[in-house]
Amino acid sequence: MALIRKSKPFRWRRKHLLGLRELDAEEITYILDTAKGFEQISTRSVKKAPPLRGKVIVNLFFEDSTRTRNSFALAASRLSADIIEFTKKSSAVSKGETLLDTARNLEAMGIDIVVIRHSAAGASKLLSRNINACVINAGDGYCEHPTQGLLDVYTIRKIRGSLAGLKIAIVGDIAHSRVARSDMWAMTKLGAEVTFVGPPTLIPTEVGRLPVNVSYSLDEIIEKVDVINMLRIQFERLGGNPFPSIREYSHYFGLTVERMKRAKPDILVMHPGPINRGLEMESEVADGQNSVILQQVTNGLAVRMAVLFLVNQAAAQVS
Amino acid sequence: MALIRKSKPFRWRRKHLLGLRELDAEEITYILDTAKGFEQISTRSVKKAPPLRGKVIVNLFFEDSTRTRNSFALAASRLSADIIEFTKKSSAVSKGETLLDTARNLEAMGIDIVVIRHSAAGASKLLSRNINACVINAGDGYCEHPTQGLLDVYTIRKIRGSLAGLKIAIVGDIAHSRVARSDMWAMTKLGAEVTFVGPPTLIPTEVGRLPVNVSYSLDEIIEKVDVINMLRIQFERLGGNPFPSIREYSHYFGLTVERMKRAKPDILVMHPGPINRGLEMESEVADGQNSVILQQVTNGLAVRMAVLFLVNQAAAQVS
Amino acid sequence: MALIRKSKPFRWRRKHLLGLRELDAEEITYILDTAKGFEQISTRSVKKAPPLRGKVIVNLFFEDSTRTRNSFALAASRLSADIIEFTKKSSAVSKGETLLDTARNLEAMGIDIVVIRHSAAGASKLLSRNINACVINAGDGYCEHPTQGLLDVYTIRKIRGSLAGLKIAIVGDIAHSRVARSDMWAMTKLGAEVTFVGPPTLIPTEVGRLPVNVSYSLDEIIEKVDVINMLRIQFERLGGNPFPSIREYSHYFGLTVERMKRAKPDILVMHPGPINRGLEMESEVADGQNSVILQQVTNGLAVRMAVLFLVNQAAAQVS
Repeated sequence: MALIRKSKPFRWRRKHLLGLRELDAEEITYILDTAKGFEQISTRSVKKAPPLRGKVIVNLFFEDSTRTRNSFALAASRLSADIIEFTKKSSAVSKGETLLDTARNLEAMGIDIVVIRHSAAGASKLLSRNINACVINAGDGYCEHPTQGLLDVYTIRKIRGSLAGLKIAIVGDIAHSRVARSDMWAMTKLGAEVTFVGPPTLIPTEVGRLPVNVSYSLDEIIEKVDVINMLRIQFERLGGNPFPSIREYSHYFGLTVERMKRAKPDILVMHPGPINRGLEMESEVADGQNSVILQQVTNGLAVRMAVLFLVNQAAAQVS
Repeated sequence: MALIRKSKPFRWRRKHLLGLRELDAEEITYILDTAKGFEQISTRSVKKAPPLRGKVIVNLFFEDSTRTRNSFALAASRLSADIIEFTKKSSAVSKGETLLDTARNLEAMGIDIVVIRHSAAGASKLLSRNINACVINAGDGYCEHPTQGLLDVYTIRKIRGSLAGLKIAIVGDIAHSRVARSDMWAMTKLGAEVTFVGPPTLIPTEVGRLPVNVSYSLDEIIEKVDVINMLRIQFERLGGNPFPSIREYSHYFGLTVERMKRAKPDILVMHPGPINRGLEMESEVADGQNSVILQQVTNGLAVRMAVLFLVNQAAAQVS
Repeated sequence: MALIRKSKPFRWRRKHLLGLRELDAEEITYILDTAKGFEQISTRSVKKAPPLRGKVIVNLFFEDSTRTRNSFALAASRLSADIIEFTKKSSAVSKGETLLDTARNLEAMGIDIVVIRHSAAGASKLLSRNINACVINAGDGYCEHPTQGLLDVYTIRKIRGSLAGLKIAIVGDIAHSRVARSDMWAMTKLGAEVTFVGPPTLIPTEVGRLPVNVSYSLDEIIEKVDVINMLRIQFERLGGNPFPSIREYSHYFGLTVERMKRAKPDILVMHPGPINRGLEMESEVADGQNSVILQQVTNGLAVRMAVLFLVNQAAAQVS
């Protein structure tokens, strides 16, 4: 009898998901494959599976969010976990120590997983070092928003089969975007070529050290890319006057019907939402046949179910 | 053996409940009969039934509400559905498209039923035309609040057996009341005779085209009616000065102990809540033996369970 | 055969928990023993038990609270109850009657247990006299916060075995503290000797009629006590200028590393949370080996599960 050779099976070992920078391609792929298994639960008549029954997840959001918060809440609910909603504006919280006190208190109540959004980069890492519960970063400052990055590559992979060799533009306010950073790590690790596109004032100064190309002209790259991710202009984060006027920004960096005529016919149009219609893109584009924006939302649920499932599993192995 | 003749069984076919104007008497009666079946669940020790297990309902309230929101949340919970709470002040939402974007995003997350309250008349209809999920109107502008209308006729029918031939007065700020409109449709379709009572400034101008009588004097009608529904004065909706003073309003249109002496002994006193005690009615009347106000609240739960159950059933038949 | 003598078994009969003043030592002990049984549920992998399945609990908080509210929500969830969150700032509620109307409406929806926090002393008692649902006081004015008192004695008893003969100091703003009052009743009934410590302006005037000692000097008592409970300075409740400056307060009544050197080596350091680090106590003390602050949080969950369980059981016996 011939010997059967098996490749060593991959085993997920992280009890925190803090960012995609630290993950390798195999880990990212494993999350996506796990998400694929969960995707069908959301299309069933009874949208429930039991793996996290009796587990408690806290949505610890120090910044406003509707869709990410709801997405995690629904993902938790589909896995039969209980969820505690915790809201506090960062401004009301007196820095570092209080964040830890808040988290330690939640942990003392027996929380299993903390999903945290915070205006300070590194907030989730700080937590993960100081509590025993699993920590999932749902956005920290301008640093990372890993589940958004994961749902973006999940969406592309689902349609195109693979990211290898794809040319992807991420357009807009790169400097203040944690989505751009998490996308960049996930996309490049899976073999795509990423270009940041925006006015010089909105391209981060450290871009030279990042694995991306830079372009200051949407018109220059629109014909070449397979995927275009239009970032939201986050007026609430823009201090000063990063661009002369909304109208001018929109003129140079908005995805119009006109510009779409020069794009590849099968280009994928993405947006992390919510859309400022008529600003980042025209409504006809947002609702057009190339748009996968609502698929991103749907896939976000499957990806977050996978992440909740995996960190919980890793925690169980450790203890 | 004799042939058994069955009347053709009624089958509920609506996956949305947008208003009572469009329903016929048979449909309204069918909801009430279904609610009767659910009423006993609320009196059981274990207040749970499984029909909506794994379904997700969103409470999409763009206006403040405590009791309607809680009533839907409890109704959902008793049917074992999961509920997502979504709150946004209308003022923060930038019109039509954003409402649709919000709803489409929720739908992309796999929501089964949207319960919407919005300051704009027709908001629920707009939604129902643009998403696949079931839509239940929980109040839109001054237009309709169908579950309130249903719980009002449910309460009357439960006590009196039928609405046929009953004389019903709806008293107060008719012009700004969606409750008055939904009540009017439900009550008249079930055979009651409805009179709107209020000062001329609070009677809507289109009243001539509605199936109601009008009276400008509570004293004139108090002796004649079987049911009196005292609307809440909604100070937050009254622009300008619709009446010279609260004291004067209360003098002419408040339900006092004195006025009650002239009413039929078995008159039913209703109020959609919350009561401004001493304004629409004196406390002795609100808490008196003719008051069915708390029964309305109890019945609201059964009616909302029925509506959630029926729209979900209709959606399952369609798909 | 010898006759077996059994002491008459204790039976819990209260369907409300309004305060600890009215409980006797046997009742308090019975709650603590019940909590002990529930404690292990929180350490299980599946943190769920079925005793309150299908029951509905409302968190009726008229004052801000994160931890007490979350603690009750988690306790309810672990017993498989459903929870309705209800928030309203006291200022928006127009006194007595509206509180009753709110509660009666909730009751009409079939609520089983109301957990109420309110700025008015006696609010929970008022409720308990006017509705049929069980009422649990989660803090009323400066009067009582019974579940905090229970979790404090639970924590001490768990470590020391018994409270009999222990010397306990409660330090800080006694006058505005419902925690101090509930602690005092629970601790003295279980045999401890309690001393209130604070500046004269923060010691209540009625202290002469309470079963406590008074000290105006932390330095005077620090060496003598077995347990020290450092109250939170609640800036939001302090009108006027109860002490010349925070710095001065902290100098005389803060628990510093320096002061701790003079304390008994096994002194238990408690705090109801959240801590103003550097004010009531230095961080090294809060996080030090004598601190049982996070154990208080953990035990709070077990105690609240016990209370929810017991009042519900008593209500079932009555009806």
